[in-house]
Amino acid sequence: MKPTHIEHIGIAVKSLNDSIPYYEEVLGLKCYSVEEVVDQKVKTAFFMVGQTKIELLEATSEESPIAKFIEKKGEGIHHLAFAMEDVAEALTHAEGKGIQLIDKQPRPGAEGLMIGFMHPKSTGGVLTEFCAKKK
Amino acid sequence: MKPTHIEHIGIAVKSLNDSIPYYEEVLGLKCYSVEEVVDQKVKTAFFMVGQTKIELLEATSEESPIAKFIEKKGEGIHHLAFAMEDVAEALTHAEGKGIQLIDKQPRPGAEGLMIGFMHPKSTGGVLTEFCAKKK
Repeated sequence: MKPTHIEHIGIAVKSLNDSIPYYEEVLGLKCYSVEEVVDQKVKTAFFMVGQTKIELLEATSEESPIAKFIEKKGEGIHHLAFAMEDVAEALTHAEGKGIQLIDKQPRPGAEGLMIGFMHPKSTGGVLTEFCAKKK
Repeated sequence: MKPTHIEHIGIAVKSLNDSIPYYEEVLGLKCYSVEEVVDQKVKTAFFMVGQTKIELLEATSEESPIAKFIEKKGEGIHHLAFAMEDVAEALTHAEGKGIQLIDKQPRPGAEGLMIGFMHPKSTGGVLTEFCAKKK
């Protein structure tokens, strides 16, 4: 049940093009992938830092959760994702501990992972995701 | 100049005692250290997840930056810290790229590290820290 590492940190940005240079030129990271996740209405850019990815998230529609987040809170860290062995098991365990789930069942996410979110009301204000490789 | 890994993720909480059970019982992590950082007016609790620490931050005074953060934004992710070889060099490099620094020089942080912060206005809304082991 314990996470093996922080899989990624999701950061809401207004524009990937405007944000990528900070990560590349100031932090010295390399953007290795840009991917659109159609059902989440986002375009993502990924950087690797040790075991962990930085995932920049740009909204592709005003209906995107990222557009709503930025409207309310401005650009910044959007969510924290833990790498688990099994997302379904992690979600069930969390629900058993009284955590409110956003996803009752795992669903496909970016980078070919299975993912599931818990509600930040239950997790101390941190929108928290479980991820695992597809089996 | 490239970070080796995410050194820690700082999370502002109202109460360590109320927050630690979520990290231990829901996520299966183990709190290995509670430390007070007097000059930052915070009490911290640490958990290891792979290469990265989760650092919970509780204010010990109303004047603490953490108290002000929670008052304004509520509990949640406060900052992101990258492990660097040399904090002074990383700060100088960032300033040369036009980044506004909070710390012009490295200073001592929790866990015996040298640290330096960049201003979130310059870093896409993410309060960002460089850390390195003391030499």
